[in-house]
Amino acid sequence: MLSKNEQKKIRLLSEKKYRSKFGLFIAEGLKIVKELIQEGHAFESIYSSKPIDFAPYKLIDKSTLNKVSQFTNASSIIGVFKIPKFSNRFNTESFSLALDSVSDPGNLGTIIRLCDWFGINDIFCSSDTVDCYNLKVVQSSMGSIARVKCHYTDLSTFLSKSELTVYGATLNGISHYDNLYNKKGILVLGSESHGISPKVLKEIDQYVTINSMGVGTKADSLNVATATAILLGEVFRP
Amino acid sequence: MLSKNEQKKIRLLSEKKYRSKFGLFIAEGLKIVKELIQEGHAFESIYSSKPIDFAPYKLIDKSTLNKVSQFTNASSIIGVFKIPKFSNRFNTESFSLALDSVSDPGNLGTIIRLCDWFGINDIFCSSDTVDCYNLKVVQSSMGSIARVKCHYTDLSTFLSKSELTVYGATLNGISHYDNLYNKKGILVLGSESHGISPKVLKEIDQYVTINSMGVGTKADSLNVATATAILLGEVFRP
Repeated sequence: MLSKNEQKKIRLLSEKKYRSKFGLFIAEGLKIVKELIQEGHAFESIYSSKPIDFAPYKLIDKSTLNKVSQFTNASSIIGVFKIPKFSNRFNTESFSLALDSVSDPGNLGTIIRLCDWFGINDIFCSSDTVDCYNLKVVQSSMGSIARVKCHYTDLSTFLSKSELTVYGATLNGISHYDNLYNKKGILVLGSESHGISPKVLKEIDQYVTINSMGVGTKADSLNVATATAILLGEVFRP
Repeated sequence: MLSKNEQKKIRLLSEKKYRSKFGLFIAEGLKIVKELIQEGHAFESIYSSKPIDFAPYKLIDKSTLNKVSQFTNASSIIGVFKIPKFSNRFNTESFSLALDSVSDPGNLGTIIRLCDWFGINDIFCSSDTVDCYNLKVVQSSMGSIARVKCHYTDLSTFLSKSELTVYGATLNGISHYDNLYNKKGILVLGSESHGISPKVLKEIDQYVTINSMGVGTKADSLNVATATAILLGEVFRP
């Protein structure tokens, strides 16, 4: 059984203010819950409607899971995890990503998954970027949130202190095909509608533009996750 | 005013069987509706709560739009468009994309937008790929559905007749960085969970794999739209 208080707490964790207050976030589904635990993430409780063997858990019935799940069809397992604390210290040994005002949770989750694929450990996010512990972000990261760290910070101040080359995706840069990336550096992407903010733009060392290849193409922008994918494909070109 | 019958019809068009029956689909929002009309798509009716100057329309109040919209917050305009008829004839003058069992509407919409960016005119979809006139596809294509044609067909039969090189994204191919693409060809992507189906695999001339760059990375797959983005970035590398 889940007490009324436990049920209420899980439901409150759909809101960022309560995630911050309690220092907790929710993950749903076997793959993601298991990966978080295997990567050593501390948790408060695991609720499952089926027996599991990788963590202590509370067996609860499916109808109760359905009541507290944020999905129409709840999965068989919900985990309440502790939000980890990271230092914002910049890792100068690898390439990193920075996001300025990216608001769509599905896009952030997809970008986290991409970073995991390319071996990027750190994403530096402007304070108004969507919370990485938003359930939609956690879910669309497909477990990669267990390995990639999102740091929320004042992005322009942070970048101004970096000694690495700062690349920024804009519409007026040099072609991203120009083989321009250092092995160590940081790539900044802005929101789809507004691009990189003026304050952050000042900290960019090199503007980069994805060539639009269509003869007379009228597509005026790319989804921020697919733009990140194309750019990272180039960054990690052997 | 919108008659009860008109309201019912718009609501029915959220289902594929009614879109097929009536030969109609819905687009919501000024950018998309305008682009479809400017690209010459035939429409049955345009309903708007604000005056517009690019098409004949019916002025209706916001509360009625809200009633028929599939979104929680309706935009100011809904268009009922005719589903165009395309021939499945293969354009041998350009590069094309093929999708095998891609089920997520957001992913298909994002892929359509990507194709538009790269100047790809045709996407050949297996019959079980999500309908491109699903509202979520139309919306996430951000207007690119107005320019990129989706053809639904028996994919293996279709590919068996193609004289162009057929590339397929798999986990056991040569590196996508190997500069291997012909200017004319067709690239096949499968579903995230099952990959390309065995029948379609038989028609692939060259397997291609996106290198996972992380040392000890545990990401086991990429979102199909971001995988398409990385691959198209290479296909169109100057």
